[in-house]
Amino acid sequence: MEKGLFISFEGIDGSGKSTAAEKLCAYLREKGREVVFTFEPGGCEWGKTMRDILLHGSYAPAPRTEALLFAADRAEHMAACVFPALERGAVVVCDRFADSTIAYQGGGRGMDMESLAMLSDFAAAGRMPDITFYLSLPVDMAAARRQGQEDRMEQEKKDFFQRVADSYEHLAQQNPERIVKIDATCDADAVWQQIKDKIDAFLQY
Amino acid sequence: MEKGLFISFEGIDGSGKSTAAEKLCAYLREKGREVVFTFEPGGCEWGKTMRDILLHGSYAPAPRTEALLFAADRAEHMAACVFPALERGAVVVCDRFADSTIAYQGGGRGMDMESLAMLSDFAAAGRMPDITFYLSLPVDMAAARRQGQEDRMEQEKKDFFQRVADSYEHLAQQNPERIVKIDATCDADAVWQQIKDKIDAFLQY
Repeated sequence: MEKGLFISFEGIDGSGKSTAAEKLCAYLREKGREVVFTFEPGGCEWGKTMRDILLHGSYAPAPRTEALLFAADRAEHMAACVFPALERGAVVVCDRFADSTIAYQGGGRGMDMESLAMLSDFAAAGRMPDITFYLSLPVDMAAARRQGQEDRMEQEKKDFFQRVADSYEHLAQQNPERIVKIDATCDADAVWQQIKDKIDAFLQY
Repeated sequence: MEKGLFISFEGIDGSGKSTAAEKLCAYLREKGREVVFTFEPGGCEWGKTMRDILLHGSYAPAPRTEALLFAADRAEHMAACVFPALERGAVVVCDRFADSTIAYQGGGRGMDMESLAMLSDFAAAGRMPDITFYLSLPVDMAAARRQGQEDRMEQEKKDFFQRVADSYEHLAQQNPERIVKIDATCDADAVWQQIKDKIDAFLQY
């Protein structure tokens, strides 16, 4: 019987996910919890093989192949890392999870979202995070934080990130019980305060 | 618009699939058709990477991971080999396809058949073979042909192949329009005659 807690962080690149996730991990460790910080894709040892194929291979697989490889990476990450940690009572904090698949492959690249959700559901054996912190901010602000080059972001890239952001907003609306939308336009301390308030309420600290 | 013909061969190991498939390829080439003979898993160049991971890696991935990797192999095989061949009008003869997934991973290893069918359907973009030749024979006979060691086949292996064979029989009953059941207890010439009769009727030779 699972005793752990499964938390994911989501948002477009530059939204400040990683910083916020680090703070949450440190906070929960202070509270005496075992915390496993992980990420997708490539979060388990074996997943590096997948990551190499997906990101560094000279051969570009077809879109369906790629979706299945991402799902395979998720399945292995769950089986080898997430499920064992949850079973021993740890808090698993995962930088990107199923919502990234829908937002990036679906919204961004235009793959069929229903199929993607079905693959993800199979890979994760139906296990979704207990809480997802979605760091929401306009794509222009994210681009500025990412590169300090807001003006030079090409239109194509902007359109892509806008579709990703739109998908995240839609997911947040569809899943209000699971997804906590965080206003990420404010500074890192204010972002952290929103997350801390939520997690304190959830864990009754 | 596809002009080709997609044919798969199915059956337990030792059923004589490969011999029959070779004869069919030679026959269709004689008739002037372009024939692409291929196989799964690992039938495309890139699929060798998958095959290495699946069959020769030191790490044994979880069952869901494995199912997704097989599906990824199928997706790439379809995109890189089968679809282009069908589009230029070739006959594609494939040694093992979607029914193998159901029979081996589902029937043999006990994975959920509905999920496997759904993964396979995604991988193949819904494209099933036009004709599937299923070479049916009792597992004991197949074992004898495979090894010449019928008596020594362990019970576990026998049970496994029996479940695979039962799944094939069930698939054949469920898909009478697509799956042509061939009596593979007779000799290779008689097996070929059954296949030839069917393909002649189908292609109106």
